[in-house]
This record gives sequence, structure tokens and C-alpha cells, in this order.
Amino acid sequence: MKSLRRYLPILSWARTYDRETATSDLVAAVIVTIMLIPQSLAYALLAGLPPEVGLYASILPLVAYAIFGTSRALAVGPVAVVSLMTASAVGELAAQGTAEYLGAAITLAFLSGLMLMAMGVFRLGFLASLLSHPVISGFITASGLLIASSQLKHIFGIPAGGHTLYDILLAIASTIGNTNPVTLVIGVSATLFLFWVRKGLKPLLLKLGVKPFLADILTKAGPVAAVAVTTVIAAGFDLGAKGVKLVGDIPSGLPMPHLPALDSALWLDLAPAALLISVIGFVESVSVAQTLAAKRRQRIEPDQELIGLGASNIASAISGGYPVTGGFARSVVNFDAGAATPAAGAYTAVGIAVATLFLTPLLTNLPQATLAATIIVAVLSLVDFKAIQRTYAYSRSDFAAMAATIVVTLFFGVEQGVVTGVILSIALHLYRSSRPHMAVVGIVPGSEHFRNVDRHTVVTGDRVLSIRVDESLFFANSRYLEDKIYALIAERPAIEHVVLMCPAVNAIDASALESLEEINHRLQDSGVSFNLSEVKGPVMDKLKRTDFITHLTGKVFLSQYDALCELDPLTAHRSEARTPKRVAQSGPWTGPEI
Amino acid sequence: MKSLRRYLPILSWARTYDRETATSDLVAAVIVTIMLIPQSLAYALLAGLPPEVGLYASILPLVAYAIFGTSRALAVGPVAVVSLMTASAVGELAAQGTAEYLGAAITLAFLSGLMLMAMGVFRLGFLASLLSHPVISGFITASGLLIASSQLKHIFGIPAGGHTLYDILLAIASTIGNTNPVTLVIGVSATLFLFWVRKGLKPLLLKLGVKPFLADILTKAGPVAAVAVTTVIAAGFDLGAKGVKLVGDIPSGLPMPHLPALDSALWLDLAPAALLISVIGFVESVSVAQTLAAKRRQRIEPDQELIGLGASNIASAISGGYPVTGGFARSVVNFDAGAATPAAGAYTAVGIAVATLFLTPLLTNLPQATLAATIIVAVLSLVDFKAIQRTYAYSRSDFAAMAATIVVTLFFGVEQGVVTGVILSIALHLYRSSRPHMAVVGIVPGSEHFRNVDRHTVVTGDRVLSIRVDESLFFANSRYLEDKIYALIAERPAIEHVVLMCPAVNAIDASALESLEEINHRLQDSGVSFNLSEVKGPVMDKLKRTDFITHLTGKVFLSQYDALCELDPLTAHRSEARTPKRVAQSGPWTGPEI
Repeated sequence: MKSLRRYLPILSWARTYDRETATSDLVAAVIVTIMLIPQSLAYALLAGLPPEVGLYASILPLVAYAIFGTSRALAVGPVAVVSLMTASAVGELAAQGTAEYLGAAITLAFLSGLMLMAMGVFRLGFLASLLSHPVISGFITASGLLIASSQLKHIFGIPAGGHTLYDILLAIASTIGNTNPVTLVIGVSATLFLFWVRKGLKPLLLKLGVKPFLADILTKAGPVAAVAVTTVIAAGFDLGAKGVKLVGDIPSGLPMPHLPALDSALWLDLAPAALLISVIGFVESVSVAQTLAAKRRQRIEPDQELIGLGASNIASAISGGYPVTGGFARSVVNFDAGAATPAAGAYTAVGIAVATLFLTPLLTNLPQATLAATIIVAVLSLVDFKAIQRTYAYSRSDFAAMAATIVVTLFFGVEQGVVTGVILSIALHLYRSSRPHMAVVGIVPGSEHFRNVDRHTVVTGDRVLSIRVDESLFFANSRYLEDKIYALIAERPAIEHVVLMCPAVNAIDASALESLEEINHRLQDSGVSFNLSEVKGPVMDKLKRTDFITHLTGKVFLSQYDALCELDPLTAHRSEARTPKRVAQSGPWTGPEI
Repeated sequence: MKSLRRYLPILSWARTYDRETATSDLVAAVIVTIMLIPQSLAYALLAGLPPEVGLYASILPLVAYAIFGTSRALAVGPVAVVSLMTASAVGELAAQGTAEYLGAAITLAFLSGLMLMAMGVFRLGFLASLLSHPVISGFITASGLLIASSQLKHIFGIPAGGHTLYDILLAIASTIGNTNPVTLVIGVSATLFLFWVRKGLKPLLLKLGVKPFLADILTKAGPVAAVAVTTVIAAGFDLGAKGVKLVGDIPSGLPMPHLPALDSALWLDLAPAALLISVIGFVESVSVAQTLAAKRRQRIEPDQELIGLGASNIASAISGGYPVTGGFARSVVNFDAGAATPAAGAYTAVGIAVATLFLTPLLTNLPQATLAATIIVAVLSLVDFKAIQRTYAYSRSDFAAMAATIVVTLFFGVEQGVVTGVILSIALHLYRSSRPHMAVVGIVPGSEHFRNVDRHTVVTGDRVLSIRVDESLFFANSRYLEDKIYALIAERPAIEHVVLMCPAVNAIDASALESLEEINHRLQDSGVSFNLSEVKGPVMDKLKRTDFITHLTGKVFLSQYDALCELDPLTAHRSEARTPKRVAQSGPWTGPEI
């Protein structure tokens, strides 16, 4: 029963579900439904799919998440970045508007769902942590810019394609002469209106005495207003005949659930993209869910979230939708509107289903430029140049990974961008750990403390060389450790004992163990003993399973002071004779390297 | 001048070159030459190339290394593992015996030389440290098994191919009916003889009163004896007519140096294999060179070694040879025979050139089975099952990487094996660092020391939660850190202050910084202050470049004791009141986790 409840979180909250909670959930569902309709259409457009596919992706996935998800407020459905990635992956295999294109998008959702499920069952959520914050932030900023520029064609009413910034701008430049002036007026007005709603409407409403909650809802309803007004205008003035591209007839009715075709060549082609979409979608979704959960002191289970999102994507695929994930904007609306349980998502699903059945005829005259305007305004809020600046100031190597992600995403493609960022951040991390900070240390007079000889006034003797290494020892730095120790020894012919101080060594892998054995062996050849000090318990436990300690020419000392007292008592005594002084003051730390 | 000497180590030793050194070098060169001739033919056979190519690869490369290399005793030339990798890479592009096959092998050497040169100039020697010891050891063991089994066809005198263990054994099983009995007798006798020479001859000679140095040389000359005896027998009994495969006519004369053709499609096909051969060859060569250098207290420069090996491979390519690297067996012979400078290599080159010009007619009747026997005996010494056992006992994750390398190398291919091993060891390292050891700590009564509450009798209060994290904080573990701290807080409603103790945190990257900011923010929401203690100097320097410290709801304390005294003086006082005792004894460390 307990394990069943792990996989079906619905069992935890459904038992205590009462009328009051149901009312909160219903109110939230109505608000989210209204907001979700234009958004779903717009993101389907961005993915290069027929508008109804966006609606299909907003029905069953919500029900699946309500059963399997652990967040109380997360709203799943089509989102901007995943839509862009879908367009990029599917666009390589088929032409927009064909049945193959739609089939590939559905298969992509199915594959991504299976992968998320598998990652959840095998608890591989840790894969998401390979995406560092700067890489994610850079990727989202670049995607935002890419999406916004890809929507310009709808604002100008020109046919222009392309999946990279260069291609998109080139295509726009070569077709901008064919701009449809009416479309441009609608597109620009809608964009300006939506920017004003986002920045100016809420303060205005609050000044007029509208309650904050209502002001928030009205602000979020901006896209709905834009859709309604432009549709009415387009219908009234018959703008379709004047060359303004409209959404057109949306088939009303719901798709019959069916499994996507098992086409192994297609699956293989889509697998890399499906993996990236899964991981990116998961990271986005979990960040949103964790932010919202923390506000109400709830917890979400990352491994179960994988299963929830996996179920949502499979549900999307079997109902003719495309890849979905937890979206930031809609989840915040859901949360603010008071959604108390995942049931709110299920009610929203009913709302969208009703809309799909009965309201789609009203959207025939909706100009595509309006949808493009809602996308542009939504994604530009994802662009975060300050994060780039902050990362540059803090860490050059994180900045390098971020900059590479942005540049490659913009100019080579979204998948290439993510992969470059991940590989580069892992490579830079390994490079940094491959050259650990190592310091020759001496004793601080009148204390039992040891400090870097280059930074502090300390006492050292000629016979004992004490070296502190500030990193776990593993394959990437074991050779460096050897080189460094041999170099230090080569400079000091009088040395009789080497002590490696290990307070910051959290692990020693098999490669590093062999290097330590090699160091011990070579030092022995030159008559120098090799000692360790301040080795951590878990590390020592592992070393004891080998014969390293028995081969060691020296000892393992509990503290560096013990090592000095035994190996070079004269220097230890000399240090005590000096005037004792406190090494540093207590209180907030302001000193240099310790 | 100094930088010229960095790139041309020959300038350092050539100035002091005298008659005595020259004599040592000449003696070593004669011995190595004799040993190198059968070895070069055998490895060319293993690579699927005409025998003379092995000789060509043992002339100019030695001269190039003498000019650019830093090791005084390293002998470069064809080696077993690189020959196997060459056969595997080239075998995918062309059929053995064709001009395309030879051309591809030459191009592979050229490409590998360029890559090694580039790695040397850009000081990318650190790439080699991505190959962990267990991966290298597993790869060499698997290669040894693969090579030995691939040579069985020559022992049986049957036509059998294959690049994986399964294919090789299958091919042998299906053609073993065609075994040539005479070939089998020669092959088995040669193998048994060479095993006896390796194991039994030296003790016997020593017992007979032969001097150790001479005994060593005679032992190493075993293959030469086997070659001479079987060649005479084959010629005397005209075994070629009885179906015994012989080496046949070797073109005498030296190849005219010329650059390989620039075929961009071929270069692109060979690039991944060239990279792997470069890195594997470099790792093998540097280990040999470092081992020998340490014995005479000399140093080798890894980045300059890249240039030396790069030059050798380019020299091999322009003289019609295939990829080379520093070999273990021949370098040890060279070293033991007294080679004092790289000039010994140049003399050896002259020796091989003379042999190629005048001695090749003598080798026409050499049975291929003899060469196969020398290969089998040589490579079985590379197989190290004890290393597998040792790694298993020490570390399961290192063992996993090693086992995967072995299995994939044997059953899928050599390139796949290395790549799998490298990826898996990086992934396991990241996985391990993604779940750092974290402990709730309390104060040891009567001291200023803090220890894990689960392992020691310590004092803790209800108001302050002290957590020690035993790992650098970076993208792979920043989310785990957040999760863990929230979970600990959720269990302890009375907590007012959290102190994160960072003595083992050697770095904090941008992702981890954001997580710390998030933790600070969320703890603030629940009225808990967030503090740090024992932050290292370099880490603190970086944090000060951000506004993290100003946003911090708590403080950064120099020591955990200072933190406790300020945040919870009562508990600090309570701990002092207890009977003071020494935490642990000095001397070799035997206690548990600290």
C-alpha cells in the first residue's frame, strides 16, 4: 500500500478531499482554462502544428498529472521552450503541414513520456543535475530570443522559416518587402497592448481601487482580451480576404485515443531529441513545482515527478498532442487562483475539452499575428541578461559554459546548444578538479595550526615537507598530484619525510590509490618516508580494505601536529618557544586563505 | 633560446655528449635492434599490414623522438595495442591487403601525429587524465585477450577474421577443420618455447653462473632464436610447399619520404580513431617514460612528450609506416642495456635501416606462425586479472567502469570499449559527487571540536542546526544540498538558526551559489537564519565578489565554535561543564569517521 501510494500520489490527497477544497480547485480551474486556450493555440503554432493539437495537449496530460504528480499547483501543457525544441527536432524529418510532421511530433511526445517514466522508475532524476544553472539560464535566454524572432514573420505577415537566428533573420530580410500592412498593424498593436497589460495595467487597476487578487487575474487575462478583440475586428472587416492570415477552421470534437505507430527508424531518429526534451522539460517543471511547494511548506518528490511528467506525455501522445511539461506562467496563475490539489488540473482539462467541443468555431477568424504577439510578450520575459552579467562577475568558467550555450543555441540549434553547454560544464569542472589547490604548509608559532607558507608567517624544518591538498583525489587529478609531489621533492634535497595533509580529501578512487602507491614507492627509492595526516573516517575505512597502509613507508597520523612532533620534534619545539599568539580573531571571517 | 630548448630537448643533452655516453648508447642500440626486428614484423602482421611496414615504422620515428622527446630511454615503434586499434579502425574502411588499407593506416599515423602535436602545443595533456587507471588497465587486459585470440588463426594455419572476441571465435570454430598440421606444430612449439624462455630460461642461466645482465639479454633474444630456427627449418624442408604460410618476399630498400594524400573524407572517417589512438598511445608511452625516468631521478615533460610522439607519428607516416608509440618491452630493454640519451634511439634506427636494406631476404621463409607465437606470448603478459580483483575489492564504481570497458572492448570493439569506459567513469564520478556526504554535527563535550551526531557522543541544542558538507559545491550536487537542508529543517520545528560548516568545500560554482541564495531565501520565509562557518579563503574571496554575503540572514563565522557561542551560548556553556576529555589519541589513525 505504501509503495502504491508512492507511485499514485492521488491516493494521499483524495481521501481528505472535501467541498471547500473542491470549490478552491474549481475557481482556479475556470481561470486557468480561460488563460490556457490562447496559450495552447499559440504554442502549437510555434511548434509548427495545427492549432487544435495545442488544445489536445492540454486535456488528457492534465488528468494524468493529477493522478501521478506530486505538486499541488503545477499546471502541465504546451510550453514555449519545449514547443521550440519540438519544431526543431521534427522539422529535420518532415515538412510543416504534412501528416508525417504531426505524426513525428506525437511520437516525440510518446518517446519522451517513456523516457521520463524509465528515469523515474530507475530514479535517474540526478541526470537533470548535469544541467548547471548557467547552462539552463543561458539556454532559456537564447530560446527566448530565438522564439521571439521566429514569430516576427507572423507579425509582418510574410512567409519566412529557419531554425537558427541567422537563418530566421536572413529569411525575414529577403521577404520583408511582401509585408502585409493590415497584419503588421494588428500584430504591432497586439504586442504593444500585451506589453502594456504586463507592465502598466496592474498598477493602474490597483490605483483605481481594484483588489490585488482581481487585478492579477485581469492582468493575466490580457491575451484573452487581445484574442477576442482582434477576432471580432478580423471577422467584422473580413480581413482574411485582405491577406491577413487567420487560424482558420479548427476541427471541433475530441480525438479518439490511439497509440502512435511503432516505426523503429522514426523512434531512433527522434531519440536524442526526446531525451533532451525530457531532461529540459523535467528541469523546468521541477523548478516551478519546487518554488510553489516551498511557499506552502509542501514537498515534491523529484523521482515521482518524472513519472507524473512521463504519464502526461504519454497521455498527450495517445490523444494526438505533442510534448508537454509543467509551465511557469500557468502554474503561478493556478497557484494564485487558489488551486489546492491536483484535482484543479483535472477540472481545467474538462474546461478545455468543453472549449474544444463548442468554442472552436469562434476562433476561425483569430489572426495568427495575435497569437504571435502573445508568444513574443511571454518569451521576452524569459530573457535574462542580468544573469549573464552576474555569472561573468562570479565565475569565468561558468560564464564560458553559459556563453557557449547561448551562442550555439542561437546560431547552430537548440539541441546542439544544450549538449555543448552540458559537455563544456562537465569538462570545465573536470579540468578545474584536475589541478587541485595544493600548498606547502608550516606550523603557526605557539599553536597546533598549519598554514600555507606562501601566505602566513609559519615555521618549517628542513627534514619534513608538509603538503596540504584541497580536493578529493580521483582519476582526473591523480597524475597531477604525482607530478607536483615529485617536483617539490626535487627542489628540496634535505627532505627525509613527506606528510600529505588530507582534511579536504573526501574520497580517493582506485586511480588515486595507485598514484599514492606509486608516490610511496618512488619516495622509498630515494630514502624519503611517505606519511598521511588528518585522513577522514570513510576514506580511511576504504584504504584499510587494501594493503596500502601496510606498504606505507611512513604512518597515518590523526593530526598534522602529531606528525610534526614525531617526525621533527625539534621544529615542533622551536615553534612552541615563539611568542604564542591567536591565529585569527573570532567573528565574521575576513581573513585570507587558511 | 630557452623556449627553443623546451621544444627541442636534444639541445639540452647534445652539448655534453661524450665518447663514454656514446658507447653506452651504441651497445643499447645493437641489442634493441636485434629484438626489434621480429617484433616490428609481428606487429605489422597484427595490424593487417605487409611486414615491411613494421620496419619502416621503426626507423624515422626513432630519429624524430630523439630530437623532440624528453625521455632518455623510451623506445618508440609499433606496439601491440595500437596495432590492434589500427587494424580495427582501418578494417572498417578497406579490405586487408589492398592499397586503400595501407593508405588509410599511413593517414591514420599522420592524423594522430598532428593531433598529438596540437595537444602538445595547446598543453592539453590533461585530456589523458580522463582515462582512469581501472579503465586503462581493463582496456589493456581486454586488448591482450583479443590480440591473443586473433593470432590463433596463424597458429592453426586457417583463414579466420573478426574484430570482436565473438566473431574471432566463431570464425575459428567454423574453419578449424582446415587446420594445417605442420603450421600447428611450428606454432605450438614456438609458443611453448617462448613461454619457457620467459619463465624458465633466466633462472636456469643464473644457476649456470651466467652474469645477470647477460642472462637478461639472452632471455630477451628468445624471439630472435625462434625466428632463426623456424626460418631455417621452413627453408630446409620447403614448408611453404606444404601449405605453411611464410612471410614471403619483403621488398628490400627504404621508402622515399612523401606526404600522405589529403583526402578530406578519409580524414573525417579516421579522426575519431586517430584521437583515441593518440590518447591511448600517449598514456601508455608516458607511463613507461615516467617509470624509467624515476629510476634515474630524471623528469619527463608530459606536454613535450606529446610533441615528441606527434613528431614520431608524422615521421612514421611520411616514411610509409603506421601509428607508433613508446613501447614497454623495448624501452625496458633499452634502459637495461644502458641507453643514456635519446641518441641510442637514433642508432637503433640506423640498425633497423641496415637490416631493412640487407637482411630482409633472409626472412622470406619465416613462418607467420612464429610471429603469431611471439605476439601471443608478449600480449598475455599484459593481461592482469589481479588488477580486476584489486579494483573490485577497493571500489565498486571503479570496478563497474573497468568491467564495462573489458566487456565492451571484447564484444563490441576497441574504440567502443575505451569510450564506454571514459564516459562511465566520468558519469560515476559525477553521480558520486552529486550525493555528497552530509552530517548533522554536535560539539564534543569539553572541546571546541564538532562531530557527526550519528557516530559520536556530542551535545546539540534545539535552536541551532549545524550541518557539515564533505564535498565541493557545484552544479551536480547543488539541488541535492537544497533538498537535504529542507528535509532536515522540516523534521525540526524548533530550529532558529542553520549553520553550514564548510571546511571541506574547496569551491562553490555559480549553480551552487544560486542554491545557497535559494536556501537563504526559503529559510528566511520560515524565520530561520542561515549561517556559514569555516569557509576557506579562496572560496570566501569569490563569495565576496557577489552580494550573497549582504543578503545572508546570518553570518559567516571563522569557526563552528564561534558560531555556537554566538547563536546558542547556553549549549556551548553546557558542553564546557561536562568532564573534559581528549577526543582521540595521537598516533596512527584507527578511529571511525571524524
